[in-house]
Amino acid sequence: MTQTVEPATNTTSAARQRVEKWLSDFSAALAARDADRAADLFATTTYWRDLIAFTWNITTVEGREGVADLLRHTMETTDATDFRIAEGEEPDEADGVTTAWITFETAVGRGSGLLRLTDEGAWTLLTTLDELKGLEEPKGENRPKGVQHGATKDRVTWKERRIAEVDGLGRDRDPYVVVIGGGQGGIALGARLRQLGIDHVVLDRHERPGDQWRSRYKSLCLHDPVWYDHLPYLPFPPNWPVFAPKDKIGDWLEMYTRIMEINYWGSSIAKNATWDDQKKEWTVTVDRAGEEVVLHPKHLVFALGVSGKPNIPTLPGQDVFRGEQQHSSQHPGPDDYKDKRVVVIGSNNSAFDICGALWEVGADVTMVQRSSTHIVRSDTLMDVGLGDLYSERALASGVTTFKADTIFASLPYRIMHEFQIPLYEEMARRDADFYQRLEASGFLHDWGEDGSGLFMKYLRRGSGYYIDVGAADLVANGDIPVKHGQVVELTETGVKLDSGEELPADLVVYATGYGSMNGLAGDIVGEEMADKVGKVWGLGSATTKDPGPWEGEQRNMWKPTQQEGLWFHGGNLHQSRYYSLYLALQLKARAEGIPTPVYGLQEVHHTA
Amino acid sequence: MTQTVEPATNTTSAARQRVEKWLSDFSAALAARDADRAADLFATTTYWRDLIAFTWNITTVEGREGVADLLRHTMETTDATDFRIAEGEEPDEADGVTTAWITFETAVGRGSGLLRLTDEGAWTLLTTLDELKGLEEPKGENRPKGVQHGATKDRVTWKERRIAEVDGLGRDRDPYVVVIGGGQGGIALGARLRQLGIDHVVLDRHERPGDQWRSRYKSLCLHDPVWYDHLPYLPFPPNWPVFAPKDKIGDWLEMYTRIMEINYWGSSIAKNATWDDQKKEWTVTVDRAGEEVVLHPKHLVFALGVSGKPNIPTLPGQDVFRGEQQHSSQHPGPDDYKDKRVVVIGSNNSAFDICGALWEVGADVTMVQRSSTHIVRSDTLMDVGLGDLYSERALASGVTTFKADTIFASLPYRIMHEFQIPLYEEMARRDADFYQRLEASGFLHDWGEDGSGLFMKYLRRGSGYYIDVGAADLVANGDIPVKHGQVVELTETGVKLDSGEELPADLVVYATGYGSMNGLAGDIVGEEMADKVGKVWGLGSATTKDPGPWEGEQRNMWKPTQQEGLWFHGGNLHQSRYYSLYLALQLKARAEGIPTPVYGLQEVHHTA
Repeated sequence: MTQTVEPATNTTSAARQRVEKWLSDFSAALAARDADRAADLFATTTYWRDLIAFTWNITTVEGREGVADLLRHTMETTDATDFRIAEGEEPDEADGVTTAWITFETAVGRGSGLLRLTDEGAWTLLTTLDELKGLEEPKGENRPKGVQHGATKDRVTWKERRIAEVDGLGRDRDPYVVVIGGGQGGIALGARLRQLGIDHVVLDRHERPGDQWRSRYKSLCLHDPVWYDHLPYLPFPPNWPVFAPKDKIGDWLEMYTRIMEINYWGSSIAKNATWDDQKKEWTVTVDRAGEEVVLHPKHLVFALGVSGKPNIPTLPGQDVFRGEQQHSSQHPGPDDYKDKRVVVIGSNNSAFDICGALWEVGADVTMVQRSSTHIVRSDTLMDVGLGDLYSERALASGVTTFKADTIFASLPYRIMHEFQIPLYEEMARRDADFYQRLEASGFLHDWGEDGSGLFMKYLRRGSGYYIDVGAADLVANGDIPVKHGQVVELTETGVKLDSGEELPADLVVYATGYGSMNGLAGDIVGEEMADKVGKVWGLGSATTKDPGPWEGEQRNMWKPTQQEGLWFHGGNLHQSRYYSLYLALQLKARAEGIPTPVYGLQEVHHTA
Repeated sequence: MTQTVEPATNTTSAARQRVEKWLSDFSAALAARDADRAADLFATTTYWRDLIAFTWNITTVEGREGVADLLRHTMETTDATDFRIAEGEEPDEADGVTTAWITFETAVGRGSGLLRLTDEGAWTLLTTLDELKGLEEPKGENRPKGVQHGATKDRVTWKERRIAEVDGLGRDRDPYVVVIGGGQGGIALGARLRQLGIDHVVLDRHERPGDQWRSRYKSLCLHDPVWYDHLPYLPFPPNWPVFAPKDKIGDWLEMYTRIMEINYWGSSIAKNATWDDQKKEWTVTVDRAGEEVVLHPKHLVFALGVSGKPNIPTLPGQDVFRGEQQHSSQHPGPDDYKDKRVVVIGSNNSAFDICGALWEVGADVTMVQRSSTHIVRSDTLMDVGLGDLYSERALASGVTTFKADTIFASLPYRIMHEFQIPLYEEMARRDADFYQRLEASGFLHDWGEDGSGLFMKYLRRGSGYYIDVGAADLVANGDIPVKHGQVVELTETGVKLDSGEELPADLVVYATGYGSMNGLAGDIVGEEMADKVGKVWGLGSATTKDPGPWEGEQRNMWKPTQQEGLWFHGGNLHQSRYYSLYLALQLKARAEGIPTPVYGLQEVHHTA
């Protein structure tokens, strides 16, 4: 056997000394329960983001006053101690900022985080609760044994137990959590719940896990690269494609659900859910493949995706149009439309993907652009936008998925656009020729209201962009003609624009996006409760489709809402992976009767 | 971002200097094509094991003469250069042996290995060819892109391509390799072939991958722990059980086959295969779910498992016995046999597992022991036998699966028993009370003919042992009575032993093991060719069921045989993982027309 050289930890760097001093002072102030003294260790401009470690909430406080307020309300019950530089890590110093991976303990769990110090004190602090003491996940050294050694009369096998566990729900017992929606969000959360030993069921209207992807248009591939997309516990293998085709992702989700032993009911629709405030539980009526089953969970999680209900515009003449009409979510792919005239209304991701695929089979396709769209080329986005955190390059320099996720989470939403703007300026320079051609074709292009690009649009409104994998060139080259304006009506034979122009069509595709996330929830829990909980997603940035006031975090996502026992989960694969842990730990703490006093429960400013 | 401390590589250790000197001298001797000078760098007692890097064979040479002979025949074509200590590794020194991870290049590929030096020179050397230059696997930085960017008329999607690829075999094209047997061996090899871009199909008589496990008796769990069992590319997740239940392994194999895009035909039986020595290809007739398909591969791999055809003894009275008779491979599990009288003939793994499960449901079960059995307790085996290489402890000390496999492969078979004997002496001490009780019950127990225990029995004969997961206690306690002797006949109502005793039975289970691996092959390629290739498995240790002469390697496994284009693959999950790479690379080199002169092609000493 051989061994690697021990790192030279005997010399203590100035950066290490600085971080250790700060952690020691912070610890001492907390031990003395002196919120003001602790707050004085922060810079005047400061952002402390906490994921359930101090606040049992996902929240960011700003300024020394914000820090002091958070601590006054939380430090007694949190009892955070033992702040250290994470084992095996060395603080890094660059541009006047010292950055350090840290760990700590609370009364109930173990946490970690990322600290950035300037001369003034802590500039940013991220704290996360990673596990509950005595309730650690069974993995690694604590993995299950599998076989039960010894001889036991009437042994139940793993397979028998699994079948009984899934089918016994609603018959011989109730789950603690019902998750509505079994795409990547529901599946990632299901894996966390399984790992934490929380009885659960994930419901989805599709027959098999992954059908959410399989049923989409046939040329669809992930727009995010593999390094960004891993699910918890079981990363994609090293031969997994950068941008996986939809059916391959479907296969992965199906096998993941089985391997992770997630209690998953396919072909199941939650028809309605009501809250009993006396019993503190839900009554959820489910159509499970035609059979009505009633479940009584303590918690209900909506994991229906950032995309809520399909937005289909109501237009005069939709009843007289003689061709086919589809929302983009219903579009089966191009194969039946060779030589047909297709009008696609919309100019974001789905519109481009559908137009491109239709053009490839020889359809006569026209795009209707109603408002400007932000486009970035996939390769450029991957390199400039994600490459430092999610790439082979990042892995080679030691940025694991966990570190990348944590760094990402540590950037305060308030100033995130400031970090994003230069990246998109770089992309504009790099692809200047492409943007010139695109704009010369008449296509209306933007970079977001403050030039902060795609990711901020995603966080603020979840729409308004296209990650170009080829179809934008078809527009830039004129292969796919683009018409501008609003659709005023459908005629028997086509689409009429406000310019008076009429576009003949055999098929009209409404690539008109999706409604609010809580629109879908409202169908199940009722409009009144949906309004009580309020708008889901967005930051309160006071930009299009994301009205102010500033919220500090994404509205209602992964954290307590105004309705006890009602939660929202979802987002892209990255968010599903990362935030599922913190949502699952919140549920676990409640299941175990651990006190979870919520600091800074969000207010509701918008109902939809 | 933060960084970890750089290892202190500026001081060169004495061990490093010694290894570098040896590698440099070895390189120089090879460059000078001086086999004797190179051989003089080895100790007088020395073992050089080569996996296809120098020899295009799996072979071990012994002594300086062996080394010189190998080099005289191979060094010119191999042209090995650039021997170095592997990047990031430091040689280790213990008990007078310096151990170093090494890398090198050959004319056609890149290799690695493990070198152990004593004062006399190289005591052991392992060399392996890991990849072919210019034909590296698409993974990590070279992973496939997935989506095809840009717009392409008549695009074929991933799913369409996959279906066409699997179903087009035997219709629009022939595979380069046909693998018969789709258990873990065929599946691991299939994954390697896919990665190397070799057109292939894996055939199995069961409907779905994993059914080989699912169809076995219901209490079956893996007897080897998870760390030993990983398949290539996609390790089990950290929550995978130590000893996975059979249905869970079945699920894993099924999803692995899909995720790795292995061309797999279920419900398919290879009826016969003939070799055309002019065309240098096989004609393989396959029954694919009732349809006859004829394939013409260049290579045929049998991956039918160490267990060949079920051994069912022919006994007088089998036609008059009124109860049920089953081979252990046919036993459906205990559920139908509550309160029945069952006689299990045999006393190895399957016999114990079946007896234990029958006892658990309340059957009246008797075991017939015909010869002595070696038993080790699972926990003890895992800790003492495997713990240094395959465990959380090993991982924590830096022994990755790759390193564990390589260390394992580097121990010469000739002296392996010497390393094993002390481990089993330790196990005997640790479980002394258990063995006392077991022997007091009358059970005949052994430790292998030279006391080298289970693993050597596995390598030599593949049978004669039980890894105790509980049923041995039932025997030791007398809950399962054991009868000794040979079965002379079946009567209408039971089993008659040579002692004259008759055991009444409703069910007789023949846990009598399996025939030779090439028995199954013979059914397909004919007895003549099976005899030409000779016995498969075993080392020539001159112990029971493994006749001499000494072979140096496992007979016919993963390496060229006396029949061009005919290969054997299999073994446990560890062997399937490790050796599949070297078998796949041999096939890849042949597919690419790279010269593969075989040194030391094995002779045939036994036909079955």
